[in-house]
Amino acid sequence: GDTFDATDHPHRRYNPLTGQWILVSPHRAKRPWQGADETPEPAVDTQYDSGCFLCPTNTRVSGDKNPDYTGTYVFNNDHAALTVDTPDAPQSDNRLFRSESARGLSRVVCFSPDHSKTLPELSVSAIRSVIDTWNEQIEELGQDYIWVQAFENKGSAMGCSQPHPHGQIWANSFLPNEISRKDDNLRAYYQKNGTNLLVDYVNSEMKDGSRTVVETEHWIAVVPYWAAWPFETMLMPKTHVRRMNELTDEQRDDLALAMKKLTSRYDNLFKCSFPYSMGWHYAPFFKEEEGDDTNIEHWQLHALFYPPLLRSATVRKFMVGYEMLAESQRDLTAEQAADKLRALSDIHFREQ
Amino acid sequence: GDTFDATDHPHRRYNPLTGQWILVSPHRAKRPWQGADETPEPAVDTQYDSGCFLCPTNTRVSGDKNPDYTGTYVFNNDHAALTVDTPDAPQSDNRLFRSESARGLSRVVCFSPDHSKTLPELSVSAIRSVIDTWNEQIEELGQDYIWVQAFENKGSAMGCSQPHPHGQIWANSFLPNEISRKDDNLRAYYQKNGTNLLVDYVNSEMKDGSRTVVETEHWIAVVPYWAAWPFETMLMPKTHVRRMNELTDEQRDDLALAMKKLTSRYDNLFKCSFPYSMGWHYAPFFKEEEGDDTNIEHWQLHALFYPPLLRSATVRKFMVGYEMLAESQRDLTAEQAADKLRALSDIHFREQ
Ligand SMILES: O=P(O)(O)O[C@H]1O[C@H](CO)[C@@H](O)[C@H](O)[C@H]1O
Ligand SMILES: O=P(O)(O)O[C@H]1O[C@H](CO)[C@@H](O)[C@H](O)[C@H]1O
Repeated sequence: GDTFDATDHPHRRYNPLTGQWILVSPHRAKRPWQGADETPEPAVDTQYDSGCFLCPTNTRVSGDKNPDYTGTYVFNNDHAALTVDTPDAPQSDNRLFRSESARGLSRVVCFSPDHSKTLPELSVSAIRSVIDTWNEQIEELGQDYIWVQAFENKGSAMGCSQPHPHGQIWANSFLPNEISRKDDNLRAYYQKNGTNLLVDYVNSEMKDGSRTVVETEHWIAVVPYWAAWPFETMLMPKTHVRRMNELTDEQRDDLALAMKKLTSRYDNLFKCSFPYSMGWHYAPFFKEEEGDDTNIEHWQLHALFYPPLLRSATVRKFMVGYEMLAESQRDLTAEQAADKLRALSDIHFREQ
Repeated sequence: GDTFDATDHPHRRYNPLTGQWILVSPHRAKRPWQGADETPEPAVDTQYDSGCFLCPTNTRVSGDKNPDYTGTYVFNNDHAALTVDTPDAPQSDNRLFRSESARGLSRVVCFSPDHSKTLPELSVSAIRSVIDTWNEQIEELGQDYIWVQAFENKGSAMGCSQPHPHGQIWANSFLPNEISRKDDNLRAYYQKNGTNLLVDYVNSEMKDGSRTVVETEHWIAVVPYWAAWPFETMLMPKTHVRRMNELTDEQRDDLALAMKKLTSRYDNLFKCSFPYSMGWHYAPFFKEEEGDDTNIEHWQLHALFYPPLLRSATVRKFMVGYEMLAESQRDLTAEQAADKLRALSDIHFREQ
């Protein structure tokens, strides 16, 4: 009979962080395409746009005026999904109608005053300022909230309503699903094996190499073994770091470099501004006074990049029908995706 | 202080089928929009398209010629995500690199020979043929496979590469994530309460009425209390039905009517061909010979509709950044969405 070959035969891979499987169908990459094309993001060429509500000195819908900022700039989102003073919700008498009140806030982080530059086009030191801003925001909001999600939606394919380079920070009075599930899985692994899942994983990936996309002195970015999105990556420090505030100065500088290299490879793949959602996961701010278990040894800081594109600047992967109803499915292996990203230059095509 | 009002205050709702929470931010529906517009599906006006690989008498890429079919027509997908004879995968020696071989097949179900008609525009008796075809396929493939996912991706916003009305059937040698998780939750509820979760839920919704969108003699469609997508619905029989083959003739006719009414309301909402992914969940085909627990009393047949549109035929909800990294979030309550759908005619706008 035939012997199994992961580059050719359908199989499922297990994501130990979510406890979910991913269906991998590498033979399927060959099918023809008649579906929707994404509109590629037009290159922005103006450094200041008077109609942009994120550019320095402009007035926002709220009436507030942006300062003439030169680095990063943070403000409260005028249309936050959460409010700081939500009243408590009453209990339902039907166990199938269960709800709870949610508190929090949402901020916008402008990465740069320059309207025309996306993350990979910023200098390493400008990216370092973004990292410092994330860290300050997370530290500040972590005083009051158990979870602070820092993320970026990049490109209109990812619902980003604004080309000006920016991300968001949402603080939550609750542990969101994805964090709660990850906390359970990391904790269970730690309890069972006495080691940290993601530290073990980093070591395994460094040894293996086949999924590595970027490696710097202190950081490694891989297409995870269990990636769902075609060019999904995970960016991790090489040592055990539970939260961003534990990073040394050197690790932060090196993170800025690793992020520039990774996002440049992304843009180089289809010679476009590569859309994605990215964000940080790390140990939640468990509160002793609320009776939480405050042990966080099982946690490891990492960034997740979820890019939608599959075949070109205009053809994306749709996570629809089967994926929504049954299971995530991908058309190339993690190793094949890593190969493609690794074959590219890590200098951005506009800077070459 | 303020008292909690679900139509105004952010809160989370619990989905007992998935064990996940959804963040509801009803006050957020007011924010302005500068992001991507979806291309609305152009109305198709030709009943036969010589370039369409699903139209009767046309030849497909595989070289196979479609018969001159008059009702539904099923064929094997030439680019299936699964293969029937996948060899077994070897075991990995690293517990973080876990995979398994996957077997299955994928079929295309043409709903009608008419290239120009979508589901809501088919006659009730034509929709009844689609239901019978689903049932036959599920019964046949359930002999060999533990799971058979029947679904439809409708519209280019849902990655549908073909305007000709059709759905897909994917048969799996494994229980996909969503089914496995639902099986666990339904079983646990049954064991704890001695009743069927979804039967209890149907009764609660019939009594409440605020989330009901369509009600016929034997069926009810609601925006579930825990809906994630703006106009998500669940379509359920009013009595306990574990699988499609248990439906009486009368229930099947009535299902065709309920589906026509529901999908017509969808199209009427933004006067467009409303995109969605829909599909059926029901008791898996557990195999006694494989040592599975074959008790299925905790299951209830139901269809799920996941439509992406939020505000108009061209403005969709993006499940990105925060949603991918933390938790699903919606901008209007389930009750507000049901109100909007209920206010419309259940006669399709092109048939009025
Ligand atoms: O099979 P199709 O219609 O070509 O493809 C579509 O549906 C599949 C099943 O939901 C998805 O895996 C694809 O991403 C989507 O584009
Ligand atoms: O806040 P924005 O950029 O207007 O909105 C975008 O990101 C949010 C957080 O991921 C999502 O809830 C929205 O669906 C998306 O359009």
